[in-house]
Amino acid sequence: MKPSLDPFTVLMDLQTGALDPTVETVERRLSDMKGMYQVEPDGDDQVIYRVLLIPVPERNSEIQCSTTILEPGVVGDEYYMTKGHFHQVRDRSEVYIGLAGEGLLVMATEQGDHAVEPIQPGTVNYVPGGWAHRSVNTGTEPLVFFAAYVGDAGHDYGTIETRGFPVVVLRGASGPRVVPNPRYRR
Amino acid sequence: MKPSLDPFTVLMDLQTGALDPTVETVERRLSDMKGMYQVEPDGDDQVIYRVLLIPVPERNSEIQCSTTILEPGVVGDEYYMTKGHFHQVRDRSEVYIGLAGEGLLVMATEQGDHAVEPIQPGTVNYVPGGWAHRSVNTGTEPLVFFAAYVGDAGHDYGTIETRGFPVVVLRGASGPRVVPNPRYRR
Repeated sequence: MKPSLDPFTVLMDLQTGALDPTVETVERRLSDMKGMYQVEPDGDDQVIYRVLLIPVPERNSEIQCSTTILEPGVVGDEYYMTKGHFHQVRDRSEVYIGLAGEGLLVMATEQGDHAVEPIQPGTVNYVPGGWAHRSVNTGTEPLVFFAAYVGDAGHDYGTIETRGFPVVVLRGASGPRVVPNPRYRR
Repeated sequence: MKPSLDPFTVLMDLQTGALDPTVETVERRLSDMKGMYQVEPDGDDQVIYRVLLIPVPERNSEIQCSTTILEPGVVGDEYYMTKGHFHQVRDRSEVYIGLAGEGLLVMATEQGDHAVEPIQPGTVNYVPGGWAHRSVNTGTEPLVFFAAYVGDAGHDYGTIETRGFPVVVLRGASGPRVVPNPRYRR
């Protein structure tokens, strides 16, 4: 076959997740997270995470890549987190590589099962198809990870916006606590 | 959908590429590279690279992941390199993340075009479908990188074993030289 794309290289800062060149950035502020925390955020509407994308065509022969930089902090007792999503094409899998900071990867199925895995420098998390995924920064520094997923996976944010995850991650006296989400709609 | 796999985490040493647990390892020795260098290797039949795999089902909803550790050295004036391959399913793409060492990623199409990109800590190389790929260690330390590719890509080593790449990378007085491969069979 004659290739439809030329090879290219992006430089990634393995500590900060910065990309050079930065082609496309998604910024999420607290105001983008309405209804997702146990209590509504107040105060400054700060950026809590950024996703830097290396966009390629959305087809299943490709690998979409991005870095995520999730700031440390809490809303009430709940750590800063990403919105979380299922893939629009449900069976598409994803891989995370932890680069900096400390966090948890919270995953859930449509059937209500959940799983929690650590994210820290050097973790390679496999998120199989059918598992919604959200990252949570349980540390005091930015949580930085690289993600790679099948090119046509797409994003379904709506299901999680409506149902939530089965568990939430709270700041406890002796570290993070993973507890049932009272607002989860099975 | 009900997921067919459970999430899991592997620990990767971001310097050495070691995986914990190590599930599957491919070792390549000089004797596995017959006919690939300009001159035949002599001396000890040492391991020149290892690929540590995180195997998942070979279907296009998955992402196969591995680390590669390519030792420094030369055969004649030609740097140690991997065999290189096309994907069996030609349009499947792959991503490399450089972790340690210094090297070059040599790529070629079936039409005889070639491309060369650097591999070093923090490079994210995109290898689009249709491009055969080989890594070359041009440094004095092991070249270590992480690779992610579409789950059903498969490997076609035979085409490169027969044809070679259009260029080879030689050790020169002032650094690596990329020169036409006199043995390339277009």
